[in-house]
Amino acid sequence: MLFLVTSNIGKFKEARLVMERYGIVIQHLAIEKPEIQADNIREISENAAKEILKQHNKEILVEDAGLFIEALNGFPGPYSSYVMRTIGCQGILKLLKNETKRNAKFKAVLSYGTPEESVISFKGEIKGIIAHSSRGNSGFGFDPIFIPEGSNNTFAEMSISKKNEFSHRMRALKQFTEWYVKKMH
Amino acid sequence: MLFLVTSNIGKFKEARLVMERYGIVIQHLAIEKPEIQADNIREISENAAKEILKQHNKEILVEDAGLFIEALNGFPGPYSSYVMRTIGCQGILKLLKNETKRNAKFKAVLSYGTPEESVISFKGEIKGIIAHSSRGNSGFGFDPIFIPEGSNNTFAEMSISKKNEFSHRMRALKQFTEWYVKKMH
Repeated sequence: MLFLVTSNIGKFKEARLVMERYGIVIQHLAIEKPEIQADNIREISENAAKEILKQHNKEILVEDAGLFIEALNGFPGPYSSYVMRTIGCQGILKLLKNETKRNAKFKAVLSYGTPEESVISFKGEIKGIIAHSSRGNSGFGFDPIFIPEGSNNTFAEMSISKKNEFSHRMRALKQFTEWYVKKMH
Repeated sequence: MLFLVTSNIGKFKEARLVMERYGIVIQHLAIEKPEIQADNIREISENAAKEILKQHNKEILVEDAGLFIEALNGFPGPYSSYVMRTIGCQGILKLLKNETKRNAKFKAVLSYGTPEESVISFKGEIKGIIAHSSRGNSGFGFDPIFIPEGSNNTFAEMSISKKNEFSHRMRALKQFTEWYVKKMH
């Protein structure tokens, strides 16, 4: 049984929807993942997987993600959830006021591990721009200010299934799932 | 021999100056300390001390510090050095544009440990306000925008010894040093 480790129920729901299509059932392991400080989300995700495997004798999938804004030198990057909790979308919009270079990337890394095997990671990213105002109320985090390439809407203006067509997390999840399905057969 | 663990030579110089007065000689252990993500700098500092003690058979002192701005819900807090590297002082000033509530705190925690003893921590903090513009060029980090209570100057407009009269780091260091001197006798 595969457990997705996340304290964010929204992330779990997004993932479950995609993996069901491949016939994979996932469970939710609702713990806070241990996180190190690093500029690289892969390092954070792999470290978290290793720490969790020391304590839980399970097959796990851990995710780390962040919004990387070019004009802000990658900020908020790996600290996106802390930045969301403190200065939020409005803070990002203030930092980009009068800024014409608004390109950004959402990146996600999924790290898979079992107590027996070494941890392996899968990446996904989506380019886009930061909107001039906050729009929409679905999703979570910086979704209301991120417009992915190929759309005029922010992630928060999309249904989960529409967002999943674009999202960094889903791209990482598809990479993982294709690998996982082969591994199982 | 006591080692101060920091990759920041400025922090080492500040500390050495104070501790010399108490007759304590410190050495610089110039490594990146391992840092976890946590809203609480004490947790970050103590965890770092424990991790370093696993690898270095030394008497160590580890420090974590941050700038906590009330109007920004504590941001940048424990991620001050990352925020400095990305959006910098100018980013903080933008976030506080037209904000009249400018109070903030610099907080520091020093954690002391040896391979034989459990880790013990000492806190220091200084209240102040965020300036309306960046001023001065001594010190490091957010020093150019922080005016401590009892002064009209930013930390970056002060000499090291003047800054040491006020600073959070020095307050934590004095707490530690007084304890350490007693312990040695």
